[in-house]
Amino acid sequence: MKRLAILGSTGSIGRQTLEVVRAFPQRFEVVALASGRNLTLLKGQAREFKPKLVSTEAVASLLSLDGRGQGEGESHVLADGEKISRARHVPIEEIAAHPQVDLVVVATAGKAGLAPTLAAIRAGKTVALANKEVLVMAGEIVSAEARKHGVEILPIDSEHSAIWQCLSGEDRKEIARLILTASGGPFRLKSEVQLAAVTPEDALRHPTWQMGTKVTVDSATLMNKGMEIIEAHWLFGVPYPRIDVVIHPQSIIHSMVEFADGSTKAQLSLPDMRLPIQYALTYPERWEGPFKPAIDFTKQTALTFESVDLQRFPCLRIAREAAVKGGTYPAVLSAADEVAIDLFLRKKINFPAIPQLVERTLERHNVINNPSLEDIIAADAWARGVAAEEGVK
Amino acid sequence: MKRLAILGSTGSIGRQTLEVVRAFPQRFEVVALASGRNLTLLKGQAREFKPKLVSTEAVASLLSLDGRGQGEGESHVLADGEKISRARHVPIEEIAAHPQVDLVVVATAGKAGLAPTLAAIRAGKTVALANKEVLVMAGEIVSAEARKHGVEILPIDSEHSAIWQCLSGEDRKEIARLILTASGGPFRLKSEVQLAAVTPEDALRHPTWQMGTKVTVDSATLMNKGMEIIEAHWLFGVPYPRIDVVIHPQSIIHSMVEFADGSTKAQLSLPDMRLPIQYALTYPERWEGPFKPAIDFTKQTALTFESVDLQRFPCLRIAREAAVKGGTYPAVLSAADEVAIDLFLRKKINFPAIPQLVERTLERHNVINNPSLEDIIAADAWARGVAAEEGVK
Repeated sequence: MKRLAILGSTGSIGRQTLEVVRAFPQRFEVVALASGRNLTLLKGQAREFKPKLVSTEAVASLLSLDGRGQGEGESHVLADGEKISRARHVPIEEIAAHPQVDLVVVATAGKAGLAPTLAAIRAGKTVALANKEVLVMAGEIVSAEARKHGVEILPIDSEHSAIWQCLSGEDRKEIARLILTASGGPFRLKSEVQLAAVTPEDALRHPTWQMGTKVTVDSATLMNKGMEIIEAHWLFGVPYPRIDVVIHPQSIIHSMVEFADGSTKAQLSLPDMRLPIQYALTYPERWEGPFKPAIDFTKQTALTFESVDLQRFPCLRIAREAAVKGGTYPAVLSAADEVAIDLFLRKKINFPAIPQLVERTLERHNVINNPSLEDIIAADAWARGVAAEEGVK
Repeated sequence: MKRLAILGSTGSIGRQTLEVVRAFPQRFEVVALASGRNLTLLKGQAREFKPKLVSTEAVASLLSLDGRGQGEGESHVLADGEKISRARHVPIEEIAAHPQVDLVVVATAGKAGLAPTLAAIRAGKTVALANKEVLVMAGEIVSAEARKHGVEILPIDSEHSAIWQCLSGEDRKEIARLILTASGGPFRLKSEVQLAAVTPEDALRHPTWQMGTKVTVDSATLMNKGMEIIEAHWLFGVPYPRIDVVIHPQSIIHSMVEFADGSTKAQLSLPDMRLPIQYALTYPERWEGPFKPAIDFTKQTALTFESVDLQRFPCLRIAREAAVKGGTYPAVLSAADEVAIDLFLRKKINFPAIPQLVERTLERHNVINNPSLEDIIAADAWARGVAAEEGVK
């Protein structure tokens, strides 16, 4: 029985993680759930999975619903007007570090995952990481802490899960190159002129993957792939010049590893996030689950590849440059991107303005090299302010 | 320093094995070479690699060339009229089992590999196996001997090397399916009428691979892929219904493994036999060698897949049926196929007669189940006689 804490349980990855748990009721125990503000869904999840602990950003609502809440650590979660769970409400960092938890699934969005990820690592928990911003912002610190505490960070992103699977049984010193595949997103075939006119609704219509809002827009700009370069660098210790990106519109090959001898390994599956989630949860085993079928090559008759057009999709270049420069630049990249996407979704800026806004914020940044966690948090806050300012120019 | 015996050193795989050795002169020592009748080439190889032992089917010529030969174990190999090597001539089984040999590369053709493979296994040598007929004829016996002596059989066939690489770090109990890829050979797009008119020259013009004569014709009939199903069964312990074949004309994905959880792994490289040979020689390491470049996905822009047409390529069905029936059937399949190919190359029968001749031979066979090695050798001899007889009908 693996005991799980799921941070971000009401988001896309969180919900799919619970689908995996539901498929193996005898083998997982959900000890704790942490959500943002979707209290209705959290209550439903608590009713079904009966966690001992919950954490939510909607604490006030939680307490008022309960009617008897006495603040942190005392409140109960209610559902359908009935008290169904005696789950204690605690801060998210406490969930991440709780003694009864074996594996912490970090499926929060944006910078929210950073503090609980570090708390989990420092408590010696295995971390299954879906929140790439954690490594984009603070890859060096998080990796160093993981090494120090002998903790494994298991990737949930399909690309990094693919690389991880390809590296099974291999010596990481023999990696020649990582090849991240990218679907190309919904705007792969659009001209620069057409890109200026796309709407948030267009951007949220991803051709192959069902994902959360932010990551779907990041997939449309290819910023997602840029961040995945940074994530791969920290997860697998591969230098940036040896991490390539290739467009693969079918999203069947999730990434590849080329080895020193000229051999390449690829991991393939239908695009379904429940597969990499399940792998992170069952690792080092593979369990036969319901998330089939596997690929039918009589139907999947072609896998194609294209180069990335950095002219139309500058986010990939911008992210790579920020990554190579390092220091607080990647944290600024991540924060400015979050602000830019928010502005785009609220129709305050158009699609091509997303990379422009991120790049202008990076240009204004005075980098701090070898930053502390505080430096990173300060850079994040600075970038949010500057990006918002740039966004109304 | 790995000490090698190379059986079949003058054939296609043997010569490419020596190319790999040549690329890493400090890391391999060629202790022994065994060839068929190409004495000129063997002498050149002996001059370059200075083996302690040689074996050749052309013993008589060897002795007469030397002029002082006193039979087995005493003769010298000459080159360019000059005595250049003091290699002793010994029987091939002695080479395979020699105490100074660490790894035996079995690159002989047809049934010639069976006896030395068993000799190597019984002497506890690691075997790198390129000769698929060894496992087709006597898979059960060879596998059982390997288990008994704790010996690893390392595949050299690109398909089986791919599967082996995909299984690295994985639990073989979690294999759901093996997917062998097939180029489809030179006649993939030919109609049944066209197939009746193809010549040996056409059959020897393989679209993607440089290989020996017999295996090239077997690739044209798809008998090669049928034999690879049998080889995969014995190498990886996977039941026949879970070994599939898919046509992949580019020969970039060399085979795939689908796992219980729905994830699939593939191994890819440009079609160059020196890569799987090198992997078998350097395993468990991967060495950076000259057999590059790796795949360039800006040029390799599509990987395609098709089903096999069993109507035009019945060998795959015939091989699978013989495999499932088991006993001496696969040995008969292999022997009849060798005879049929010989007849085709000598223009005695046409291309569609190859499967017909093999199938008629199988139909006339009285199977022996759980055969001994003697039963297999007898079935082989019987099948050669019957196939030759069927061939002149």
